[in-house]
Amino acid sequence: MTKIRLDIEYDGAGFAGWAKQPGQPTIEGALEAALKQIFQEPVRLSVAGRTDAGVHARGQVASFTVRKSQVDSGKIRRSLNRMLPGAIAVTSASQAAPEFDARRSARSRTYSYTVLNRTWPDVFQRRYVYFYPGRLDLKALNWTASQAIGRHDFTAFTPTSGERAYFQREVARSSWRRDGDLLIYTVTSGSFLHNMVRVLVGTMLEIGRGYRRPETFPALLAGAGRPDAGVTAPACGLCLEEVEY
Amino acid sequence: MTKIRLDIEYDGAGFAGWAKQPGQPTIEGALEAALKQIFQEPVRLSVAGRTDAGVHARGQVASFTVRKSQVDSGKIRRSLNRMLPGAIAVTSASQAAPEFDARRSARSRTYSYTVLNRTWPDVFQRRYVYFYPGRLDLKALNWTASQAIGRHDFTAFTPTSGERAYFQREVARSSWRRDGDLLIYTVTSGSFLHNMVRVLVGTMLEIGRGYRRPETFPALLAGAGRPDAGVTAPACGLCLEEVEY
Repeated sequence: MTKIRLDIEYDGAGFAGWAKQPGQPTIEGALEAALKQIFQEPVRLSVAGRTDAGVHARGQVASFTVRKSQVDSGKIRRSLNRMLPGAIAVTSASQAAPEFDARRSARSRTYSYTVLNRTWPDVFQRRYVYFYPGRLDLKALNWTASQAIGRHDFTAFTPTSGERAYFQREVARSSWRRDGDLLIYTVTSGSFLHNMVRVLVGTMLEIGRGYRRPETFPALLAGAGRPDAGVTAPACGLCLEEVEY
Repeated sequence: MTKIRLDIEYDGAGFAGWAKQPGQPTIEGALEAALKQIFQEPVRLSVAGRTDAGVHARGQVASFTVRKSQVDSGKIRRSLNRMLPGAIAVTSASQAAPEFDARRSARSRTYSYTVLNRTWPDVFQRRYVYFYPGRLDLKALNWTASQAIGRHDFTAFTPTSGERAYFQREVARSSWRRDGDLLIYTVTSGSFLHNMVRVLVGTMLEIGRGYRRPETFPALLAGAGRPDAGVTAPACGLCLEEVEY
């Protein structure tokens, strides 16, 4: 038995997300189909971040076990890249310790969310950024983002209510930076609730635009309900940047 | 009567090129349909560069005449951007002199051709670059590119044979530069023959790769036939950057 780790990037625009769904193009479906052909046995992937439809990844990590005792990692990577659609690329394949599991072994995940903040759209980046032409206050965005650092109750930032008992998450990094016309939010946490980054961004943009007062934000981190927070920002701006082990 | 100039950028990946074709998505078709709605009269566009299917533009220029004597350029731009598909954006609309014609008034056109030169593809840039993993000699590319500067017979670099008597073109700029993993070719000429940039690039890549000797290139600029030159590089790497007036 051999454990293999894959580092993957994908343009999520044409996919119904990571998780396999019958009759839908998914990242997991495409990878498992290719791996089955390569190893001539069904392969089950463990993944660090189950991204939603339209969400991208530059640093996704998945792992799986095969019966073979010896594998050629370089060959696996090249074979996968030949077989996969152009929107998915395996940047690295490597043998991992038997106990390695892409999901359970991950210490934290880092996501970015990119906003194109100018008055006209960008035809080349439209799949990868959220076009938001309104004037935004970067200082207010950053003050608000900094409030999310630490351990908080993120119930207000996820639609999954009732099903889970535990909405506390510990955020290690949360900040905005400007890069030309782009405003990029970066957030790191041990794990995330469903839609958590997108609702955080949607709420922060309402504050940065002046539609909501910054001082109202801390109360949202203390067990407020989903209706108290802002809109869910579109999937296209979100990207899984890195998984830390 | 008022003459209007439009500066346009587009992601050409989903289009059958600039020129209108029945039943096909084209840039000209999309623009003329939107303009007809805005002005309530049929509009005929003159364009600086009739780009082929899959070719992009960051600095395309088109012009047209409308019966109205007064127009609000800002409003035209905003209306067009609301009506056009996301892959086309009008970056500027402005009133021009009556004698201005986007095609005839242009002094020269500048195109770029972008090659992704590394061993693995890029999922986010795949629509906009030509992925060429083989090792390339930038010095050989640049020596070859410099040979194209000046007035030459470009018959070898276009499929249009026989139909036109005149294959001489004057190239003002022709050079490659490296930007990280990208190799970018920039070329400026008063006008271009059909496919000229793509055949120039295809031929230069064969030289940069070592499949063809650089010293054989100058003879191609002295009236050689199309079969003597290299392959036509894919459309995806080509972009009309600027039109000079």
